[in-house]
Amino acid sequence: MKTRILVAACTALAVSFGAQANETKPEDLIKARQAAYAFIAWNMGRVRANTEPQAVYNKDDVIKAANAIQAVANAGLGQLYAKGTEKGTGFRETRVKPEVFMPEHGAKLGEIAGNFNKEANALAAVAAKGDKDAVRAQLGKLGETCKACHDSFRTK
Amino acid sequence: MKTRILVAACTALAVSFGAQANETKPEDLIKARQAAYAFIAWNMGRVRANTEPQAVYNKDDVIKAANAIQAVANAGLGQLYAKGTEKGTGFRETRVKPEVFMPEHGAKLGEIAGNFNKEANALAAVAAKGDKDAVRAQLGKLGETCKACHDSFRTK
Repeated sequence: MKTRILVAACTALAVSFGAQANETKPEDLIKARQAAYAFIAWNMGRVRANTEPQAVYNKDDVIKAANAIQAVANAGLGQLYAKGTEKGTGFRETRVKPEVFMPEHGAKLGEIAGNFNKEANALAAVAAKGDKDAVRAQLGKLGETCKACHDSFRTK
Repeated sequence: MKTRILVAACTALAVSFGAQANETKPEDLIKARQAAYAFIAWNMGRVRANTEPQAVYNKDDVIKAANAIQAVANAGLGQLYAKGTEKGTGFRETRVKPEVFMPEHGAKLGEIAGNFNKEANALAAVAAKGDKDAVRAQLGKLGETCKACHDSFRTK
């Protein structure tokens, strides 16, 4: 009886420690990162549509989209590139390149990620002011940071 | 020559109007809504892991996750249920029930969506204070609003 209780207690503890370390399965992390970028892409599309030359600019819609982009970008996406997520299938097979996980590319990756966050924060700030042309220009800057990462760290 | 220019101009105009209406393809909207909820789910998992009894609570991590949940919840997700998205495949086949698109269920759906936003906003506010037990309790309230929608408006 004592042994059974001890086993149960240890199992509970192991579950707790597992939770503490947030040991999410690699495929769930890959799914979450695909979700993050897909949601950002939809919101960037909304901003782009609002800033087309012929479009009627909807300031509130752009603010919501920009705030979502900012929060997702700043959510701590680095956690989604944990060891074990180099290959695998979330919603679909990951397109991440092995270079993302190589220390010698860390500086470049960090710079791109930092630029991505910086331009996402700037987009939210510009969106709040409601100047269509400024938002369009800032969206372009954000898009460049997306492209920089795709060019180096994602397969086509 | 004049005709060719006119055709080109009309095409450009049509493209612009298409962008103005933000006529995203139904499958892209379905993908974006699957992305939104998958990203929320990952962030709720982070908050949950932080608030397990044995877990070391990381206030900053919880704030980032809660802010992301809040921004996604408030991004205007209703747009992702546009006409044409009743059936279809984004990342995978949608599990949305037809009831979502039936006017007679609008009031109930609106109430659930409103509660979801309210509890997501509250989670971000509670997370900012850093009280582990309060965050855990608020996460539970948010989870109830997720369940309410799944029970009525999503297939198993």
